[in-house]
Amino acid sequence: MNATPSSFSRRLEAAQRACRSVLCVGLDPDPDRLPAPFRNVPLPEAIGRFTAAIIDATAGLAAAYKLNLAFFEILGAEGWRVLERTLARIPDDVLTIADAKRGDIGNSARFYARALFEELPFDAVTVAPYMGEDSVAPFLEHPGRAAFVLARTSNPGAADFQELEVDGERLYERVARSVAAWGNRAAGEAGLVVGATDVEPLARLRKLCPTLPFLIPGVGTQGGDARAVLDAAQTAAGAVLVNSSRQILYASDGSDFEAAAAREAALLRDQLPPF
Amino acid sequence: MNATPSSFSRRLEAAQRACRSVLCVGLDPDPDRLPAPFRNVPLPEAIGRFTAAIIDATAGLAAAYKLNLAFFEILGAEGWRVLERTLARIPDDVLTIADAKRGDIGNSARFYARALFEELPFDAVTVAPYMGEDSVAPFLEHPGRAAFVLARTSNPGAADFQELEVDGERLYERVARSVAAWGNRAAGEAGLVVGATDVEPLARLRKLCPTLPFLIPGVGTQGGDARAVLDAAQTAAGAVLVNSSRQILYASDGSDFEAAAAREAALLRDQLPPF
Repeated sequence: MNATPSSFSRRLEAAQRACRSVLCVGLDPDPDRLPAPFRNVPLPEAIGRFTAAIIDATAGLAAAYKLNLAFFEILGAEGWRVLERTLARIPDDVLTIADAKRGDIGNSARFYARALFEELPFDAVTVAPYMGEDSVAPFLEHPGRAAFVLARTSNPGAADFQELEVDGERLYERVARSVAAWGNRAAGEAGLVVGATDVEPLARLRKLCPTLPFLIPGVGTQGGDARAVLDAAQTAAGAVLVNSSRQILYASDGSDFEAAAAREAALLRDQLPPF
Repeated sequence: MNATPSSFSRRLEAAQRACRSVLCVGLDPDPDRLPAPFRNVPLPEAIGRFTAAIIDATAGLAAAYKLNLAFFEILGAEGWRVLERTLARIPDDVLTIADAKRGDIGNSARFYARALFEELPFDAVTVAPYMGEDSVAPFLEHPGRAAFVLARTSNPGAADFQELEVDGERLYERVARSVAAWGNRAAGEAGLVVGATDVEPLARLRKLCPTLPFLIPGVGTQGGDARAVLDAAQTAAGAVLVNSSRQILYASDGSDFEAAAAREAALLRDQLPPF
């Protein structure tokens, strides 16, 4: 069912071939860290101009952009407009991911999925697994779209629950196996979010889920190493998207921020070739 | 630290005393289920008028309103304005809960918390636990506010992961114990989301966390029984808020929807006295 020409995986492959990289640029526009040119600009507008400038500076270097909704929601209703304009700025052949980490009972999840896949034109979304199948399934029902479900994240608290042993495996492994099974019976595609800061879970999960695409945050500022990440997780059948946000966005806080962002993105692009 | 007069728990107690109930009215305004009077009204406006009418019809019968953000996000930027207006309609002495189920790395969680507690004036928010302490802690740093963390939910998928056994206890018990510990060292307050549809987890969690407030969805349409829920979870030290959404919102789909909502809310109010 996932083999139609417009499937998420096909478009991901094309986007990665076009830019010769699995780099995903994370747009987490922190209002407290805007480069100098935007510091006297009113806030919602400043964020919109900053994200547009970063997209223009890095276009051609990334296969996808991941928009972290927290940084748009902080702007209220205007933030939603900025989100729309930011999405519209991204070239059509590059994929877009709503880093939303939504997760609610089926009836509510359906509306979250419609908000992100229909009202907004995202290609993929990140989803939290704690509430189980009916909270994830509505995000998998949209043909051509994908839901990346949190498996093993890159933050300090990741070990609190994800590493717990259940029936002889880690919780994150159980989650990953469940997601693979749910994805198999869906019209859309399932993927996993797996952090870059620890390569052991990456390798374990690739073995467990050989064909699921992995969205891998944590390279750059958070400490993950590009080469090690690819060695652990990228195979002929198993695509990866490796995200870097702050290393690119805040490469310079001066008026040269665009050139600096382009330079960092180009460096990462070269370190992250597709299989 | 939580004993200041303006603490969430004190305000909750006062609100419950005032309406003589632990009822929380859930505002999940489904655009496909609007009562007859709104069916020819343009969508964002229809939702705003519907939620306002429900609030006016049930004022005095509920200690809190829980707004499910999925049903506002589906409306885009205008949905955020409707959310603001809906919040402004709720009487000051009644508590407001953002049913958002957010959960992200600390840096992003801080912005979600600011969006809901500062840009919007919510008193509490629901939070997902999967990413661990640094994803929950930013929601606990706001004095006078509370974060209700998902422990054992009421949906069919709840058992997929929450019931797994880890080190001799259920995952939801481990989550609950962690939340209690995190709450102890925070400026704000921690609570738990525990579904009404299964009373055994409610009783287990009350024993494990005798003083945490519980937000309990699932009474009414989802099948939970009011008396059994109170018996299992409400004690002198352990407050509860019992949520009903659809049973009240969609009590009638005709022009008598306000009277029908008020009648259902009054019934539930009487079935849900404070301790």
